Amino acid sequence: MRIGLIGLGKMGGNMRERLRRGGVEVVGLDHNPAISDAADEADLIAQLGDGPRVIWLMVPIHAVDALIETLKPLLSPGDIVIDGGNSKWTHDARHAAYLADAGVRFLDCGVSGGVWGLENGYALMVGGPADAVEIAMPVFEALKPEGEFGFVHAGDHGAGHFAKMVHNGVEYGLMQAYAEGWELLETAEIVKNVPAVLESWREGTVIRSWLLDLMTHALDADPHLDGIEGYAEDSGEGRWTVNAAVDLAVPVPTIAASLFARFVSRQEDSPAMKMVAAMRQQFGGHAVAPAKD
Amino acid sequence: MRIGLIGLGKMGGNMRERLRRGGVEVVGLDHNPAISDAADEADLIAQLGDGPRVIWLMVPIHAVDALIETLKPLLSPGDIVIDGGNSKWTHDARHAAYLADAGVRFLDCGVSGGVWGLENGYALMVGGPADAVEIAMPVFEALKPEGEFGFVHAGDHGAGHFAKMVHNGVEYGLMQAYAEGWELLETAEIVKNVPAVLESWREGTVIRSWLLDLMTHALDADPHLDGIEGYAEDSGEGRWTVNAAVDLAVPVPTIAASLFARFVSRQEDSPAMKMVAAMRQQFGGHAVAPAKD
Amino acid sequence: MRIGLIGLGKMGGNMRERLRRGGVEVVGLDHNPAISDAADEADLIAQLGDGPRVIWLMVPIHAVDALIETLKPLLSPGDIVIDGGNSKWTHDARHAAYLADAGVRFLDCGVSGGVWGLENGYALMVGGPADAVEIAMPVFEALKPEGEFGFVHAGDHGAGHFAKMVHNGVEYGLMQAYAEGWELLETAEIVKNVPAVLESWREGTVIRSWLLDLMTHALDADPHLDGIEGYAEDSGEGRWTVNAAVDLAVPVPTIAASLFARFVSRQEDSPAMKMVAAMRQQFGGHAVAPAKD
Amino acid sequence: MRIGLIGLGKMGGNMRERLRRGGVEVVGLDHNPAISDAADEADLIAQLGDGPRVIWLMVPIHAVDALIETLKPLLSPGDIVIDGGNSKWTHDARHAAYLADAGVRFLDCGVSGGVWGLENGYALMVGGPADAVEIAMPVFEALKPEGEFGFVHAGDHGAGHFAKMVHNGVEYGLMQAYAEGWELLETAEIVKNVPAVLESWREGTVIRSWLLDLMTHALDADPHLDGIEGYAEDSGEGRWTVNAAVDLAVPVPTIAASLFARFVSRQEDSPAMKMVAAMRQQFGGHAVAPAKD
Repeated sequence: MRIGLIGLGKMGGNMRERLRRGGVEVVGLDHNPAISDAADEADLIAQLGDGPRVIWLMVPIHAVDALIETLKPLLSPGDIVIDGGNSKWTHDARHAAYLADAGVRFLDCGVSGGVWGLENGYALMVGGPADAVEIAMPVFEALKPEGEFGFVHAGDHGAGHFAKMVHNGVEYGLMQAYAEGWELLETAEIVKNVPAVLESWREGTVIRSWLLDLMTHALDADPHLDGIEGYAEDSGEGRWTVNAAVDLAVPVPTIAASLFARFVSRQEDSPAMKMVAAMRQQFGGHAVAPAKD
Repeated sequence: MRIGLIGLGKMGGNMRERLRRGGVEVVGLDHNPAISDAADEADLIAQLGDGPRVIWLMVPIHAVDALIETLKPLLSPGDIVIDGGNSKWTHDARHAAYLADAGVRFLDCGVSGGVWGLENGYALMVGGPADAVEIAMPVFEALKPEGEFGFVHAGDHGAGHFAKMVHNGVEYGLMQAYAEGWELLETAEIVKNVPAVLESWREGTVIRSWLLDLMTHALDADPHLDGIEGYAEDSGEGRWTVNAAVDLAVPVPTIAASLFARFVSRQEDSPAMKMVAAMRQQFGGHAVAPAKD
Repeated sequence: MRIGLIGLGKMGGNMRERLRRGGVEVVGLDHNPAISDAADEADLIAQLGDGPRVIWLMVPIHAVDALIETLKPLLSPGDIVIDGGNSKWTHDARHAAYLADAGVRFLDCGVSGGVWGLENGYALMVGGPADAVEIAMPVFEALKPEGEFGFVHAGDHGAGHFAKMVHNGVEYGLMQAYAEGWELLETAEIVKNVPAVLESWREGTVIRSWLLDLMTHALDADPHLDGIEGYAEDSGEGRWTVNAAVDLAVPVPTIAASLFARFVSRQEDSPAMKMVAAMRQQFGGHAVAPAKD
Repeated sequence: MRIGLIGLGKMGGNMRERLRRGGVEVVGLDHNPAISDAADEADLIAQLGDGPRVIWLMVPIHAVDALIETLKPLLSPGDIVIDGGNSKWTHDARHAAYLADAGVRFLDCGVSGGVWGLENGYALMVGGPADAVEIAMPVFEALKPEGEFGFVHAGDHGAGHFAKMVHNGVEYGLMQAYAEGWELLETAEIVKNVPAVLESWREGTVIRSWLLDLMTHALDADPHLDGIEGYAEDSGEGRWTVNAAVDLAVPVPTIAASLFARFVSRQEDSPAMKMVAAMRQQFGGHAVAPAKD
């Protein structure tokens, strides 16, 4: 099996390595020529030889449209494009239809695993037609973890990215719940060794998980996280999850709360809380803190 | 009608003035002798003459126990003590029982109105026996607003402070909801004159209210609240509301969210968000912001 | 001043009446001929005579596109179309551009006031060009409340509906906060006369508002709301508010919680809570309640 | 090592078995004589022989006070009482002081593991003096999982139950986050095989955990949980977590939201949503659903 892989960043670079370890030949392309195996898209397609070719995209969401436009005239009927990036599920049917004009098949693939994927394998959630999934199966096999889990053909176009989006939404909620518990332990003075408590939870408890393991690693290095600011980005998938839930009238109080906590963490000052302070001053004569410069 | 009023701070001082305007004689006592009408509790009781005497307490919650202990031996059967401060409703039955030993009656009275109460009147929520309420009625009449509303005998001991506590819990939720809406208007660039929008809401809309009026006053002085830090204290009543709701299995998502927003507003940095950032770094290699000194 | 008003339902019908009381001639059109003043759109336009004509749309959001398509060929340069319905603010710029081809101007107008608007006036939040606002001003004057508030020109296309959307989002939060407080009073047995407590809050308190007045009216008729099911629709504006906030990274915990509470209120059974029950059974052997038929 | 174990219910019974498998002699006592090894507390103490005796309590929280009163006169200086039940951490110092009068030492021990603890071991979070922990260590060793995790001496009296309480609070948040994600997958029609998606998440993903494994077991038996009502009890620890957080000004939005979701799941009808519906009817003339009998 030979595939083209476009985008060799933190995720793509490791995936190329895991694919090669798994016996898949990879022609990689990146905007950084020093790590690329091809000069450009045309060269990459040429190196893949006869079809059906498989091209895996691992690029930021904003780059996908243009990349698919570039690829379309270079591809042949029967070829398969897989969008493995953190793309929005609502884009997939559009991309599939656009490529279908040229007889090219499209798969969306949500990929989880982060920097650990190289060693542990990547969990893959795939959407699109079964015949294309079957052809690309050796690629999925090489990427996924070794056991019986870590791969699903979730449905038609968009189902893979939708499943990945929900995965990330759940991830937000889990992280926030653990973080709240940790803050409570840190704040209460009754527990003397908080890292040891979290460590103890790693076996036998109801809440043991991989995220818990990661928390203990972080605390090994910095027991009170003194060196880290309480500032958390969001990658978009949490927002899409809340928006999708709102559109479907699904209540998601913890996922939304987790997302809002990240928003707050990034504000220099909270406009809403300025207004709360202003109201308190208005009705109660409560002092307000003057804004810092 | 003559009463003793102990505690002449921001609230108590104004209440003395409103009572006097309403024809109630007030003997005031404060730890500041410059504004006191009596030298001490004994002097105050002496000045009230024959009973049944009415003594209104307007002191911080932590000072109530000691004050009632001081008063008890000075009082006579039939006298009435009214706790008008922001005391916790669970304390009232205890205070009532303690004073009942000496034949002294106890009323708890939640007072709302803030700095505007002097002119507009104070809303009063009273708990305790009906006979004591009847005796103190001229006091309540002088303090309450002029119209048909603003006074309720809510039930037995604790009912007044409980009603006031819920009032404050609701207040937290209302303030937060308005503040969120204002932040959204401020953040979206589509609305050009946010203070004018809030001003327009003051008549004809579903959300017109006194708090909305106050918001517009605050924006008159500082259109973007640039001079105010987004930092909000809580007085305890919001916490009691959430805790009471939890104990009674009543879901209070907005009141709790409002309280938590205040907690967050007072944190220099969020421990929970440090942990979220730490987890993201662990699994995704995402950069973390180093803590500021 | 004469205008065309299309859509004479609960809102539109009352608005026609208020406009006429205010001296504005109204040619009304509805799918119900019995209450219409015109046979169809063409007849309505004809009855309006020379321009600039003002046509006010008061129809459901899903009917707006088709109606504007019908109107466009009937209108003349300089005419003004006002969308006063609960349309989504993101549609307004599109409608404006579509009509601009024909030289027709467009205004979006968020309208608040419900069934009380006929007597109290309607609060109006308008988006679009100032020259069109000026021409339509007599219409706005007739609809708005009599005092100094209740009207704002909020910005360009979409600003009116955006301001109305935020108004409704805030409304969700306010309603939920009051409702939580009421449930807490109802559940705690300490307060003996809950409607009297709410009644007392109508003057002197920080939380006095028109919504509070309405709550007391509802309790006058049904002191425990025994006759009403805890089931609340949402009109879409709450969802748009949350989605807009998410897109702008504005934390809206109380507005989101209010929306989710409505979602839950409409579920026969909660899938999420089925899963929580299933997990409890799995790890703890806790009994689950069998599903009801 | 020989210990007394009082309370042989779902947890205690399995713990006796695991202790015996681990070489600890157990004298069990239960209100059910058929499964007891002793006639009563006195008999149990007698069977334990010379001290320092270790007595493990595994009874409901409301039974602990009386049981400790019964035991105190039967015990000798140096004996150790361990409260392994779901007791509130604030009770522990009181129990410790009460027993200290008689020279008896007290340990609190939070126990996690549920019905799986017999095979997998129980996670143990212990509070109290180090000398008592050391004496009881063989008991802890037999109960805990085999690996390096699953046991912590968290601090002095109350620290064990506090850590367990936070564990359970986190558990609420995790369960709710997963449940929300599952509901979203179930509701959206795009994903065709939801159980397969959850199954796939068990390896390689960021959200893999034991709770996720349990979810997939539940879905194996009932793919849409049709047989389970969305009704979830709470054991008290979630409430204590929220209350402790409120008291310490720690924001816990997801844990609180999880708790409130359980509260709602148990309501036949929601008073709060009755009021929301009533308000909508009042201002908008929106129809309300009549209450069901």
